[in-house]
Amino acid sequence: MSILQLPPTVDLDKETQSLAILDQTRLPNEVTVLKLTQLKDIREAIYALRVRGAPAIGVAAAIGIYVAARQFAGLDYKSFTEQFHQAKIYLAAARPTAVNLSWALNRMEQVILQHPTLPADDLLPLLHDEALAIRQEDIETCRKIGEYGLSLLKSGMGILTHCNAGRLAAVEYGTATAPIYVGQERGIYFRIYADETRPLLQGARLTACELHMAGIDVTLLCDNMVSYAMQQGLIDAVFVGCDRVAANGDTANKIGTSGVAVLAKHYGIPFYVCAPFSTIDLSCPNGADIPVEQRDGAEVTDLWYCQPMSPTGIKVLNPAFDVTGHSLITAFITERGILQPPF
Amino acid sequence: MSILQLPPTVDLDKETQSLAILDQTRLPNEVTVLKLTQLKDIREAIYALRVRGAPAIGVAAAIGIYVAARQFAGLDYKSFTEQFHQAKIYLAAARPTAVNLSWALNRMEQVILQHPTLPADDLLPLLHDEALAIRQEDIETCRKIGEYGLSLLKSGMGILTHCNAGRLAAVEYGTATAPIYVGQERGIYFRIYADETRPLLQGARLTACELHMAGIDVTLLCDNMVSYAMQQGLIDAVFVGCDRVAANGDTANKIGTSGVAVLAKHYGIPFYVCAPFSTIDLSCPNGADIPVEQRDGAEVTDLWYCQPMSPTGIKVLNPAFDVTGHSLITAFITERGILQPPF
Repeated sequence: MSILQLPPTVDLDKETQSLAILDQTRLPNEVTVLKLTQLKDIREAIYALRVRGAPAIGVAAAIGIYVAARQFAGLDYKSFTEQFHQAKIYLAAARPTAVNLSWALNRMEQVILQHPTLPADDLLPLLHDEALAIRQEDIETCRKIGEYGLSLLKSGMGILTHCNAGRLAAVEYGTATAPIYVGQERGIYFRIYADETRPLLQGARLTACELHMAGIDVTLLCDNMVSYAMQQGLIDAVFVGCDRVAANGDTANKIGTSGVAVLAKHYGIPFYVCAPFSTIDLSCPNGADIPVEQRDGAEVTDLWYCQPMSPTGIKVLNPAFDVTGHSLITAFITERGILQPPF
Repeated sequence: MSILQLPPTVDLDKETQSLAILDQTRLPNEVTVLKLTQLKDIREAIYALRVRGAPAIGVAAAIGIYVAARQFAGLDYKSFTEQFHQAKIYLAAARPTAVNLSWALNRMEQVILQHPTLPADDLLPLLHDEALAIRQEDIETCRKIGEYGLSLLKSGMGILTHCNAGRLAAVEYGTATAPIYVGQERGIYFRIYADETRPLLQGARLTACELHMAGIDVTLLCDNMVSYAMQQGLIDAVFVGCDRVAANGDTANKIGTSGVAVLAKHYGIPFYVCAPFSTIDLSCPNGADIPVEQRDGAEVTDLWYCQPMSPTGIKVLNPAFDVTGHSLITAFITERGILQPPF
């Protein structure tokens, strides 16, 4: 693979008025863009993680429900509203725990509810604009996170990131990777270390891939090499994304994040969580209230392998994420600024 | 695979007077015992990691050079000594950094040097006995480590181990697993957590396999899930093996060990290093003097996979081991007793 810009994670293909998504299940071996117009195909793409990452899923749902609704052209307000609502419920069920999915779909439906009596042919251009506005806002949010993050860094620093909170999880810039991309635009370069992030290897397959293709200096390492890399002085800062932040600053993110945070504290390295402000859940007092999803052990024992690499019938622990205590977090970097403790 | 005792890691097959080794490269999918008599096959088995783990390699070399030397039967002392010495050099080169390999071979050669003028047919029975003595001593050493380790534990505790310092790395009992097996003999049971140990998956392929087949309660987890498991209170103690201990207690072991030690300290969990006393290298003042071998990045990007899971040409960090600072180690468990700080 040569060093090329990857196609956008998620976009509206203007020519065909379809949802264009980069199929992330094919990375890093194939760069395939899917152009979808059928509701069932859009749902499948979200369900099967062809598009993933909370921000990217929200944008895909917004553009997706717009392109699917174009098939309802010619309907009156009442019929269109009913069809749209059913499509919304159908899409939202693809990943019921993803907050951004239902958030984006509800925002699209609001466009219709705010314009009662308009027929489909007048509503569709408004939905088109709203979907692209949601997409553009994601870019702006991530760019601002990048600018704030960049203010904490010096050229040449070594940055560790975990999992993929990159542009593949959003539209552009990503969250944890935003300071890196904004730096690149301004001629400021870093040495990036991407841990592979078992079991699903998002660090190896996605983060290493997107940074490498963007021409950024990236080194892949196994999760259990982070302590060594820090001990050797290779890492000056850690940047990660997050799934949910409790009111006290406890943060849920991909499994392995809390271990990296403990190591960073031990070695005296700042640990930054990059997050759109909407990720902060004030209704959740602390990390103990965040449920941790346990996933199928086959992800650990079988997935990606030709043959089993552990004994048949072995018990497996496979939590999908963990909670990093607020005392391990140096600061949160949001589009509204940098939040430091006390949170 | 049913829960059966695995065949011995390394043994003398009495009937055929061959070196019998359990081929660890086939685990966990196949249980294959190789019976070797030819010097080149014995060397290949050591070189290709069919037998691995410092204690097991030493025993394999001792039995191996005995069975190979049986082909020199009928020779006089001088000719036999020359043939034996060449065989020793040939075997020792298979893994030049493994201390136990040359140690065991030198000890076998001493038998010959201590009996000058004896012909081959009189020396061979002495070599037979010395090889089996080396094997038996390894069992005794590990059993004592197990007894001392067991004295630190209570029934039902959760124990985490990293990589494989199990019976597959020795003859019986292993080092880090010795307290578990000795406990089982006495009706004392633990919940064992084996991290998979990327990149070569010794935890998944070997530790989980040997404990599972021995009927021990073992749960596999990814390396980056250790923090979560400790946070959840699943782990009461950590037991690991080691490759070399410096005079100040700094300890080199499989990559990832130092990260587990930092996490154990953070969560207030004791971290024990199990080691034959011979592993302590008083000539090495501290961990900074222990060189860390960097291995081929393909072990991270390609090995075990059907297809690449990271972009072609990506830079990779792949240290084979790391050094755990003595301040992170609760105690060393040796066959002579438990060593606590200051070391």
